[in-house]
Amino acid sequence: MTTTKPSPSLAATEALQQALHDVFAPWVRELGLRVEAATLGEVRLVLPVHPRHVHAGGVLCGQTMMAAADSAMVLAVMTHLGGFRPMTTVQLQTSFLRGIKGNAGEVPLVARVLKMGRNLVFGEVELLTPGGEVAAHATTTYALL
Amino acid sequence: MTTTKPSPSLAATEALQQALHDVFAPWVRELGLRVEAATLGEVRLVLPVHPRHVHAGGVLCGQTMMAAADSAMVLAVMTHLGGFRPMTTVQLQTSFLRGIKGNAGEVPLVARVLKMGRNLVFGEVELLTPGGEVAAHATTTYALL
Amino acid sequence: MTTTKPSPSLAATEALQQALHDVFAPWVRELGLRVEAATLGEVRLVLPVHPRHVHAGGVLCGQTMMAAADSAMVLAVMTHLGGFRPMTTVQLQTSFLRGIKGNAGEVPLVARVLKMGRNLVFGEVELLTPGGEVAAHATTTYALL
Amino acid sequence: MTTTKPSPSLAATEALQQALHDVFAPWVRELGLRVEAATLGEVRLVLPVHPRHVHAGGVLCGQTMMAAADSAMVLAVMTHLGGFRPMTTVQLQTSFLRGIKGNAGEVPLVARVLKMGRNLVFGEVELLTPGGEVAAHATTTYALL
Repeated sequence: MTTTKPSPSLAATEALQQALHDVFAPWVRELGLRVEAATLGEVRLVLPVHPRHVHAGGVLCGQTMMAAADSAMVLAVMTHLGGFRPMTTVQLQTSFLRGIKGNAGEVPLVARVLKMGRNLVFGEVELLTPGGEVAAHATTTYALL
Repeated sequence: MTTTKPSPSLAATEALQQALHDVFAPWVRELGLRVEAATLGEVRLVLPVHPRHVHAGGVLCGQTMMAAADSAMVLAVMTHLGGFRPMTTVQLQTSFLRGIKGNAGEVPLVARVLKMGRNLVFGEVELLTPGGEVAAHATTTYALL
Repeated sequence: MTTTKPSPSLAATEALQQALHDVFAPWVRELGLRVEAATLGEVRLVLPVHPRHVHAGGVLCGQTMMAAADSAMVLAVMTHLGGFRPMTTVQLQTSFLRGIKGNAGEVPLVARVLKMGRNLVFGEVELLTPGGEVAAHATTTYALL
Repeated sequence: MTTTKPSPSLAATEALQQALHDVFAPWVRELGLRVEAATLGEVRLVLPVHPRHVHAGGVLCGQTMMAAADSAMVLAVMTHLGGFRPMTTVQLQTSFLRGIKGNAGEVPLVARVLKMGRNLVFGEVELLTPGGEVAAHATTTYALL
């Protein structure tokens, strides 16, 4: 009998995907974020652009982009911690550079740890347009509890 | 026959409440924000703390607070415009000072326009704890389109 | 013989003025910030608008406003600590709402502690125009070392 | 007779260096920023760590880093404009990740335009430690006048 062992990277990806389900509030879970890849200090995800997140102007709403950025960063911090550990967002600053159309399908996002301190963690998150340009750019500080 | 005409302020409050329904994405509408009072450049709202917005740590999640802050600010800008007009969030920076327990019931929030420019609008939003302390503090820039 | 004992508030003001001289880098000292009043968690200062801080457009430069805001906040934190203690700026976000003319004379600024935590301190700073409107608005996080 | 024509890139670098002298307030000029390289949307500079910019804790002060970041960004915007044109900083958020020792000698910094809009420009600036890690990270919005 042959069994295929998942690669460490795949395991990490699955653990982060599971954390999205276990740790976040139900309303945030409904973002439907999907973890695509994870390395130490960096997580790549995909955010599906569902009509529920599109406002009257026909574009993905900023509230959804900020929520995705914050959530993605928690996962990026987890890659350093080797699992979930209570933490709190100290601040999150988001700049909105380009709109994402309601029919964009999916939004790739990348969360990166810029410094993993003992108490404080600094990071940045980019959400991209279908054309690969920066749609939203967030910088953030977390405190480990 | 006597009719009671709503006060201008009440009318404004109702128009903003209606805008929350008409303008925002369905996912944001589900925040259940309630407009309590509105004057020129300032809107007071209440955010119900529903279990859907509480994360594994038992507190109101930051994603919800940012979404409420952004939405509240749009309404504050509307008090200057006399109605809705397309605008876009340029940037929003939120600091998270104190947690809000999942059983807090309701979170009062106040959005204020600090400067109403021709193209750019600056504002700040405060979300309060049940004890009246600042839970989250956001500063933000909007561009009128 | 009658002696006039300085009020505790005056003493506090003088201690903060002295700290401006002792703690800050020489280049920052040259801002010429003057402490006007101090209470627990709030410091009011005045920034003289010197031609050295005016750029080619004829207005007080943003670099000077940010430097003043950061410095003022350190003093506001000191009112809680009862003296200087090493701390570091974690982040500082400044919005520039209105220009200050090069002949404005003096810029009043107010720094307020919004939360004095055990490790982290949150605050905000306002710089005002001669007419009393907000010229620049900063929010900031400090870490006590 | 052979003449050596300066490369376009060198010319651009010199024009930016000149702008540092012509446009900025004298106090900011004293930072002694040196333009090292410039391409469309990106400028690399060096900030000398002079004792005048070192505070009582023995490290380069945050005020200097913010001033350098803001100034560098103006130059990065200029690479798109093909020269100087009046602009104003709308907001600048800086995170301070790692201290820079007073004897660090020089601090490399890079300013990048993330989006060059018709009215608004978004950018980010990184200041590096001698070891090449991020010391300070700024994100910023400018309005073209």
